[in-house]
Amino acid sequence: MKNTVMLMIQESRFKELKNIVDKINVVDIADLFELLSKEQIIIVFRILNKESAAEVFSYLDREHQQFIIESISDREINNIIEELFIDDTVDFLEEMPANVVSRVLKTVDNETRKLINLFLAYPDNSAGSLMTIEMVDLRKEMTVQEAIEYIKKNGVDKETINNCYVINRFRRLEGTVSIRRLILSDYDTLIEDIMDTDVVKINTYDDQEDIAELFKKYDYTTMPVVDKENCLVGIITIDDIVDIIEQENTEDFQIMAAITPSEEVYIKTPVFTLFKNRIVWLLILMVSATLSGAIISGFDNILAANMILASFIPMLMDTGGNAGSQASTMVIRSIALGEVVFKDLFRIVWKEFRVSLLVGSSLAIVNFLRILLFKQASPIIASIVCISLFLTVVMAKFLGGLLPLCAKKLKLDPAIMASPFITTLVDAMSLTVFFSLSVLLLDL
Amino acid sequence: MKNTVMLMIQESRFKELKNIVDKINVVDIADLFELLSKEQIIIVFRILNKESAAEVFSYLDREHQQFIIESISDREINNIIEELFIDDTVDFLEEMPANVVSRVLKTVDNETRKLINLFLAYPDNSAGSLMTIEMVDLRKEMTVQEAIEYIKKNGVDKETINNCYVINRFRRLEGTVSIRRLILSDYDTLIEDIMDTDVVKINTYDDQEDIAELFKKYDYTTMPVVDKENCLVGIITIDDIVDIIEQENTEDFQIMAAITPSEEVYIKTPVFTLFKNRIVWLLILMVSATLSGAIISGFDNILAANMILASFIPMLMDTGGNAGSQASTMVIRSIALGEVVFKDLFRIVWKEFRVSLLVGSSLAIVNFLRILLFKQASPIIASIVCISLFLTVVMAKFLGGLLPLCAKKLKLDPAIMASPFITTLVDAMSLTVFFSLSVLLLDL
Repeated sequence: MKNTVMLMIQESRFKELKNIVDKINVVDIADLFELLSKEQIIIVFRILNKESAAEVFSYLDREHQQFIIESISDREINNIIEELFIDDTVDFLEEMPANVVSRVLKTVDNETRKLINLFLAYPDNSAGSLMTIEMVDLRKEMTVQEAIEYIKKNGVDKETINNCYVINRFRRLEGTVSIRRLILSDYDTLIEDIMDTDVVKINTYDDQEDIAELFKKYDYTTMPVVDKENCLVGIITIDDIVDIIEQENTEDFQIMAAITPSEEVYIKTPVFTLFKNRIVWLLILMVSATLSGAIISGFDNILAANMILASFIPMLMDTGGNAGSQASTMVIRSIALGEVVFKDLFRIVWKEFRVSLLVGSSLAIVNFLRILLFKQASPIIASIVCISLFLTVVMAKFLGGLLPLCAKKLKLDPAIMASPFITTLVDAMSLTVFFSLSVLLLDL
Repeated sequence: MKNTVMLMIQESRFKELKNIVDKINVVDIADLFELLSKEQIIIVFRILNKESAAEVFSYLDREHQQFIIESISDREINNIIEELFIDDTVDFLEEMPANVVSRVLKTVDNETRKLINLFLAYPDNSAGSLMTIEMVDLRKEMTVQEAIEYIKKNGVDKETINNCYVINRFRRLEGTVSIRRLILSDYDTLIEDIMDTDVVKINTYDDQEDIAELFKKYDYTTMPVVDKENCLVGIITIDDIVDIIEQENTEDFQIMAAITPSEEVYIKTPVFTLFKNRIVWLLILMVSATLSGAIISGFDNILAANMILASFIPMLMDTGGNAGSQASTMVIRSIALGEVVFKDLFRIVWKEFRVSLLVGSSLAIVNFLRILLFKQASPIIASIVCISLFLTVVMAKFLGGLLPLCAKKLKLDPAIMASPFITTLVDAMSLTVFFSLSVLLLDL
């Protein structure tokens, strides 16, 4: 594909090129741009018809969008913006430097400019910044035939007409009717009689995470957005929701790995940005870990007298961290999926407590046997290690189950209470138990 | 809501109850069932009309589905199955015990039974097990008017008619046409002239993860499924894909926390199952961590002579683990999102190397100052700790960047190479460096 296109550009066989490009899916054309030189991109981009050009443009990454805007005329920019859906325009402009934004705003007409500015004013991640205004609005007094005629006249530009929205003369949302329902009904049926009045709707200021929850819960493909007065102002479509779900998951993965979350694609993120996103938590956790160091220092007499104790430190620390992060990961994920809420606290802690008894005792038994069989350690040392291990697992699972829910209650992100944080906390507790027990049982 | 419904049941005001229930969204009725007693559930379920009953049924969890099936007559079961989409029927049956499955299969007619058995035979997580057969198939010789008439006659039961699929007389897929396009075209246009022939399609045996990728890439809401002969056998809709995306993410979260992945809802998973899912990896990691213990034992002379060294072990281990899991999490996530592939290996390792230089030196400097200011340690000890810390971070980021891609190359799940595994590995390396350096610089 790439080679064919490059060959045709070289030999200036633009008509053939157009025939080929017209048959390629816009997403694949956007992919192809990654492989072409800047000059080749502009040639292919100019060959596309207006509609495809706008679609391809919406699938490009930031760098390519900026470069194209900087390489084409004002008139061409205007063509793209007119064809783009408003939500795609806003997504694109939000990523551009100020000079590109102002050039784009200068080329479009007054009405579009007003609209773009209105959308840019919605808070990031709110329904307002996600929605599109390309939708079909019907009236309940219409017949099915009138509705279909109306759609034929007005619907060409609409991002989706799978669902139509029924509004009154004040634009208040009164119901929805699917195209499916329209097509399957007799022509003289009134919209009022087939519309669904139990509409689940979104407010312009709702957060994208809550919106994604609604889509998942009700299996919708589009949902209407209303303002404070219940007037229909836009719709949100599920393809944007899929992106949001992945984005929210990526954010959770990052926070759980002690990384400041960022929406940038990893492979394209500059080294210094990666550094910035990682250093803060590493510093905090490094300094916190000195608490565990201080605990070891505090017990250096018992350690000096029993050097073998030191060799169990990594096993205790790692197992505590792993046991805790298993519990916290399950709870964090369940909170994210809406499966558990704060009032499940006791149920979860009780569940984790029972799991920790099973896990802790199994690990302790295996470890006891291992120490006796393979290490030159006395049964009393083995007992100290295994009791500590057992208590470490119980504490770890307890904190892992408890802390994410507490974070949620305190309106913090539960994902903070993941492996790094739990590990640091459990390390200190585990070492305290281990050395206290050692003092108790060895210093008799 | 719950109270109103319960009151009406108590007072046997079933007609009023029906009026209320008919207005509630089926998803919310399914939610309501969680709050009602078994007797109340059956009463409300029987009040629902056939179509709503089937829809509500498809949103219930396994326990409620089983309990309802066991409480209603064969005739009622048949009604539900006839109304359910085939993919929902199969989802439900896959979760049921054998006696329920055989009872259900006995109540349905021959044709449905054959179909169910065919679907049950597709491998788990394949397109075949996800697809539904409720779709609209057109012929390219039809006019738009004929197509709409055909849909009106046949389309009522179809799960989605947003997209229609154009097939030839051997059922080979030739193109697609959206309902939107149909409605916006003149009645005498031929389907052939408006159909889209560049169809992205799925094979019955394709894996759900790859299917989700296609949906995300192309922003589709439905995609056609074909068999080996390119014959149309079903469609997959995006609401199922949203569930799959969340399921795949949950699986990654679990594997990354050293948990054997499970699709069960955490809060409903029995304690013993949670134990089983967690103990295997904990055991493996616990035994692996004894390697680090052995390293400490191997250096116990230098440790005994310099007890202060022990107090730096937790900080080194935790920071190494955290630095490594930051890198591996970013790479695992990028692989899952399809943003990086194996050939990016050198780019990623080089990127992580540069990040590790920045992160490692920052941490080392902060740590050096901290030790000199707050700890009674000599500059030589501080140097040993900080050089070790720096090298630990570099090794951790290197392994974190490298191992997930190698796992992918070896057809393992990259998510295995997350925090627990990396931590265990880096611990051993970090301690070796730390004590070797100590021997080198303190034993002069």
